[in-house]
Amino acid sequence: MLVSELETPAVVVDLDVMERNLTRMAEYCQRQGIKLRPHTKSHKIPELAKRQMESGATGITVAKIGEAEVMLDSGITDILIAYPLVGRGKATRLADLAERADITVSLDSLEAARAISEQVTARNVRVGILAELDVGFGRCGIANEKELLALAQKISVLPGLEFRGLMFFPGQFVVGPTERAALLGEVNDLLGRTQEAFEREGLQLATVSGGSTPTAYDAHQFRGVNEVRPGMYIFNDRNMEGIGVAGVEDCALSVIVTVVSNSVAGRAIVDGGSKTFSSDRYLAGDGRGFGIVKEDPEAELENLSEEHGHLNIRHSTHRYRVGERLTVIPNHACSTVNMHDEIYGVRGERVEIAWSVAARGMVR
Amino acid sequence: MLVSELETPAVVVDLDVMERNLTRMAEYCQRQGIKLRPHTKSHKIPELAKRQMESGATGITVAKIGEAEVMLDSGITDILIAYPLVGRGKATRLADLAERADITVSLDSLEAARAISEQVTARNVRVGILAELDVGFGRCGIANEKELLALAQKISVLPGLEFRGLMFFPGQFVVGPTERAALLGEVNDLLGRTQEAFEREGLQLATVSGGSTPTAYDAHQFRGVNEVRPGMYIFNDRNMEGIGVAGVEDCALSVIVTVVSNSVAGRAIVDGGSKTFSSDRYLAGDGRGFGIVKEDPEAELENLSEEHGHLNIRHSTHRYRVGERLTVIPNHACSTVNMHDEIYGVRGERVEIAWSVAARGMVR
Repeated sequence: MLVSELETPAVVVDLDVMERNLTRMAEYCQRQGIKLRPHTKSHKIPELAKRQMESGATGITVAKIGEAEVMLDSGITDILIAYPLVGRGKATRLADLAERADITVSLDSLEAARAISEQVTARNVRVGILAELDVGFGRCGIANEKELLALAQKISVLPGLEFRGLMFFPGQFVVGPTERAALLGEVNDLLGRTQEAFEREGLQLATVSGGSTPTAYDAHQFRGVNEVRPGMYIFNDRNMEGIGVAGVEDCALSVIVTVVSNSVAGRAIVDGGSKTFSSDRYLAGDGRGFGIVKEDPEAELENLSEEHGHLNIRHSTHRYRVGERLTVIPNHACSTVNMHDEIYGVRGERVEIAWSVAARGMVR
Repeated sequence: MLVSELETPAVVVDLDVMERNLTRMAEYCQRQGIKLRPHTKSHKIPELAKRQMESGATGITVAKIGEAEVMLDSGITDILIAYPLVGRGKATRLADLAERADITVSLDSLEAARAISEQVTARNVRVGILAELDVGFGRCGIANEKELLALAQKISVLPGLEFRGLMFFPGQFVVGPTERAALLGEVNDLLGRTQEAFEREGLQLATVSGGSTPTAYDAHQFRGVNEVRPGMYIFNDRNMEGIGVAGVEDCALSVIVTVVSNSVAGRAIVDGGSKTFSSDRYLAGDGRGFGIVKEDPEAELENLSEEHGHLNIRHSTHRYRVGERLTVIPNHACSTVNMHDEIYGVRGERVEIAWSVAARGMVR
């Protein structure tokens, strides 16, 4: 099948670019002696997780137990659930998983740890635990090294749990290179203090797991980090391009849409809206727009209805006609994939493979 | 099963409120002699479409052929696809549908009409056509009554097509009651001119289809409108509350989430983010926030990561604890449902039914 024969809207992945992205990250990690544990929330596709394992990943990351279940069913047996699982129901399902695979969970509360301990002990299995450090993003995690140590000490004596180290998410690094250096200094101070505090108390940190795509290639500059969890790097997107982490030529994923209306002056309407692209905002520049139109960068995808993309074509010299196809790099690849049951791997004009987004909808 | 036993995040629909919303709209339409053709994109659930038919709807509206296929398979046979279907592939599937049901399509270009005409003629079936009028939203549709008439005249002679009238989407009415009156005057001028132009040329308008939830109860004030297509009214949401179309007590749909972290001062993190709520913005007031926390309206759901909801609790007196459950009315019910494979109908504390969101993912 040819790309031009796909019904629109269709999410396509340029396999050459994706493979280059995978290789580049794997080589960097290998060179630096850092373990690569890609976050599979970006694609939710077991076949792609396996490609990541084959190209050098030591395990994968997921956010939800449902995602872990799908990935484990496909044969991947080293999984970090980088999410504080809370409550008995989730702990029970976690124990089920731990019977079949090496599972680690990151968390920041004794409540979460206790519920997991109870369930895995009842099943006579073990789960690895990473204590989450807040390095300044202010989402989850404990920012004070003494409090984090106190939590880790309590966790390390709970039955069924194996304390394995630290996890952090440097979510504030969605900035350009200049702001980055200052942020890095602050984070390294905290990482240093924390690792010293744990060392003083004899609590070993087998893993210090950092990462995210925007910081992945700086991983060697983060003190003590020996594992990274980038997700978006497999595809890249307009946001990664906007903050200078990737070029347009590194963006493997795009959405093919069709112009369905050009009857309003200065506008062309395409057949993808927020239910195709998601309504995730642009994190760089003026924050405007929802994608890059590859055929006409002067067109601005300025607004999204649920099923309509509103192209502002006032500053464009291209003459839009109904039925024409366009290729759009979305703001956020992870959220875009999450809108689709199936996406396509393409090479040149040829559709090589259709992947089912098998872990889509695994919200629990 | 009890609501408190549902794993989170879980989308729940208060059946009493939903039934009241359905009845109120059906009664209004019946009283005004206006046909009710609900837009099922808001729920994508055949069982709910059937509830709407039972409570007085004369047919349904969808945005995508894939949605029409799901709804038709469930036995609904009067369907308006309120979307300009473009291209041969879609026209072929449309002809398939037209063999089994009474199908109408709205469009604004001769290109779209011709492709449909070719396919339905080849199959010896008929499809109804509504010509789309742009009443000021500036998305699809033709704003000039003479140009619209010229298009309709060309459509009306194409084989296999039955010209049935006008369709418009008053998307700009997402405003408070005061701005509304001025907008209504402008729209009625255009509607009047258009209907007169069509009448002069003897082109009959069997249907003048307006509507949308924000304008549904004003439908009788729109000149000549004899059909409405509200979608959100079945659930309502924070946006409808914000623009004064519904009260909090009319919001049937909410998302039950669990607090998974409270380790950052002034923050509580819940287990629903943009992949649970969508990242659709608030259309009223200061545009901030992503939902109303029913248990604590002083908490602001100020930011969404993919799987984390960031509650700002600085102005709240409630003491948040890990494991606690909260009930959140989302900004946009349609986009929220679209994130889930299954949602639950509840009455009081009892989960009465689980619905599969069967038309989810039907992006084509």
